[in-house]
Amino acid sequence: MKKFTSLPPAGTKDFLPQELKNRQIVINMARELFESFGFLPIDTPAFERIETLMKKYGKESEKLIFKILKRGKEEAIGKTDLALRYDLTVPLARFYSQYHTQLPSPFRRYQIGPVWRAERPGKDRFREFYQADIDIIGSSSLLADAEIIIAISKLLSRLNLTDYTILVNSRKVLAGFLKIYCLPENLKKATLIALDKLNKIGVNGVIKELREAGLPQKTITKIKSDLSKKSEALKNQLKKTVIGKKGLKEVEEIILLTKPFIKKGEIRFSPFLVRGLDYYTGPIFEIYLKGVSGAIAGGGRYDNLIKIFTGKQTPASGGTLGIDRLLSILSKTKKGNKKELSSSRVFITLWDYNLRVDILNIAENFRKAGFLVEISLKEGKIGEQVRSALKRGVRYCIFYGPDEKAKNLLTLKDLLTNKQITANFNEIIKELKHNSSFSSNSPKDKMDF
Amino acid sequence: MKKFTSLPPAGTKDFLPQELKNRQIVINMARELFESFGFLPIDTPAFERIETLMKKYGKESEKLIFKILKRGKEEAIGKTDLALRYDLTVPLARFYSQYHTQLPSPFRRYQIGPVWRAERPGKDRFREFYQADIDIIGSSSLLADAEIIIAISKLLSRLNLTDYTILVNSRKVLAGFLKIYCLPENLKKATLIALDKLNKIGVNGVIKELREAGLPQKTITKIKSDLSKKSEALKNQLKKTVIGKKGLKEVEEIILLTKPFIKKGEIRFSPFLVRGLDYYTGPIFEIYLKGVSGAIAGGGRYDNLIKIFTGKQTPASGGTLGIDRLLSILSKTKKGNKKELSSSRVFITLWDYNLRVDILNIAENFRKAGFLVEISLKEGKIGEQVRSALKRGVRYCIFYGPDEKAKNLLTLKDLLTNKQITANFNEIIKELKHNSSFSSNSPKDKMDF
Repeated sequence: MKKFTSLPPAGTKDFLPQELKNRQIVINMARELFESFGFLPIDTPAFERIETLMKKYGKESEKLIFKILKRGKEEAIGKTDLALRYDLTVPLARFYSQYHTQLPSPFRRYQIGPVWRAERPGKDRFREFYQADIDIIGSSSLLADAEIIIAISKLLSRLNLTDYTILVNSRKVLAGFLKIYCLPENLKKATLIALDKLNKIGVNGVIKELREAGLPQKTITKIKSDLSKKSEALKNQLKKTVIGKKGLKEVEEIILLTKPFIKKGEIRFSPFLVRGLDYYTGPIFEIYLKGVSGAIAGGGRYDNLIKIFTGKQTPASGGTLGIDRLLSILSKTKKGNKKELSSSRVFITLWDYNLRVDILNIAENFRKAGFLVEISLKEGKIGEQVRSALKRGVRYCIFYGPDEKAKNLLTLKDLLTNKQITANFNEIIKELKHNSSFSSNSPKDKMDF
Repeated sequence: MKKFTSLPPAGTKDFLPQELKNRQIVINMARELFESFGFLPIDTPAFERIETLMKKYGKESEKLIFKILKRGKEEAIGKTDLALRYDLTVPLARFYSQYHTQLPSPFRRYQIGPVWRAERPGKDRFREFYQADIDIIGSSSLLADAEIIIAISKLLSRLNLTDYTILVNSRKVLAGFLKIYCLPENLKKATLIALDKLNKIGVNGVIKELREAGLPQKTITKIKSDLSKKSEALKNQLKKTVIGKKGLKEVEEIILLTKPFIKKGEIRFSPFLVRGLDYYTGPIFEIYLKGVSGAIAGGGRYDNLIKIFTGKQTPASGGTLGIDRLLSILSKTKKGNKKELSSSRVFITLWDYNLRVDILNIAENFRKAGFLVEISLKEGKIGEQVRSALKRGVRYCIFYGPDEKAKNLLTLKDLLTNKQITANFNEIIKELKHNSSFSSNSPKDKMDF
């Protein structure tokens, strides 16, 4: 009888050993790749002061921030002082403000870790998920924006996810549209919020929201018509506004710089891409994988965010990749391997409890020889112990009974071939290492879905 | 003018690049070591349902759990449903209950990650800190308890922290004392809570707490006298109770099994070691480093915890090591190295913006050759660019101006020797790799405090 539910909280996920190894391998690949571009790793706490996070993302996002109750007396009245980080960008802005005198400029940093959002849980939508972020602080060059996109798409290619589309836009393009539509200040934000949902709710959904927001019918008709136009036609309109023209130039430069590095994927202008968060100011991008709904990566330029902390204008651009979504996609594209017996693992059986000190020593000697070694915690019933080893995927069993002890020998059983030999420790190691399938002293982890 | 404080919340810590690399190296060592003992990695969410965590640790600890406010309407009335994990043991019990049919038995698992406790922040006392836990579920053998201690002490030795003392006790020894003192049920817990503080508040502090708890004067006098006795003398008393005798046997067995593997450190019986948390049932231990206050590691047997989730008695034993405390100790024992120029890093300067596509390509070619490559995001002022490279600790700069472009060559400057050559890409690579200090294609991270 279960007394408690033992599922993880809604929207979160436990990781079984092989799943966690897969995540670790992807994270290690990301680390290696980011470092090859000169990005340096940092870490920040899971929670921030509430005021650090508020008024940075926009109202829609703010609702999704997990808040932490104060301790002590104020707990009873529901006061909160801390909140779980919603992304890795705002914490970076705070971090940069605190340590910028100790950091190189421009500062390329990467950070890989969980973020928390109180979304309605759903298939592939989690409340805790790992992000891998890269950002370049202190450069207003579009080379920085391009480098972010190149690095992320290179990582996708390394994971054999080459069938992607990169959509590029600029917040300045959107500002151009708002100019063309002659919208009053108070309707601008509502229009962008509606356009941001285009992918989810379609043209009709957007139009409905715009109507509810109170846009004039004439403008709504114009927007509806624009939403169905090709980007080339929209470019001509945009060129008539100063800000729209600037935005277009940014988009074109980024496509020029990144295209040679996008091997099989595609990169193109997406004039109505909004990318929700409030803090973006310039180029923005999202990356979509074929057959997968929702963006797998995205980012953009946020030249005003750091000023909130430092009081000094500091240009910055960055991108984020969803590690957990990536793993879930990889697990669907790969076929499950049959469980193999691992030749780098040894199981030391326990003949009887009096030999316990001996087998601890034997285990240690195999470890020194580079093997992963488990000892049996149960004595006797050797058949049961061998079955337990097989279940763990261990290939080699060691027996050490009174006979072996008397002669200072060990018995090795290969559970794959059922071959058995009795010899001294050095001979056994020789046998294991000469065995063709034992390839290395430090067995490497393999991805296995 | 700063508009916001940019320090991390009280009791938490940001990690600068080299600090994070140090943590990563220690974590990787722990992973490798634990896997050599057959421990498998798992992960669980940062937060759990509140009811999962409550009534597991004891009242003193429960106060320190960070609670998360409900979202939506109930937010306003201060309702909470989730809480940040306080350790990695209770989440493991929940995890094991959910997945045990898919796991080997006994199940050796390790988990490395942050936990959160709302302690009063102080020197080396954090509210967010990394723990590395190993546990063996499904075995009541003392071999399991011994293996936990052997693995953790081996990790300390690998980190060159050999000057440690392992204190061992059993909850059964403590039960023996409570028997000897003839305490009524309602005073037992208060007595253990007071004894748990022995290290912090000393004998007189403990006596004061016992008096406040309402223990009879006769018993207090007896306890005070016992606290100053040698453990040999206490053993004779304990042997007179069934439970105390059992506890002593556990302690002696664990010392017998672990002693051969504790090279320079020491392991001994500590009759009044309590180890705060409520869930322990058998052997317990703590590891102290010379010159460092507070335990660096600890653990014990908790045979009843998993039953709360599964309804089925399941023996378990584990240990935890504080990664952040370890790093803070390591940083005090190591001397800071002088910053060296890294021979695996290349900085590509940008002569003028028209050459931007070329330098993106050049950078990619150096990456393919195994280097960590940064490009300049600023054009012109080559002297400034070189200084920026030096500041980053990069040894090699590449120049690519109109002359080089015309002849399809590159200029390499070694910032250590100031030697400069102009040659084609392959010759440059050859030069770099023949350079004695460029040792490997995949430069390894080094710990550096």
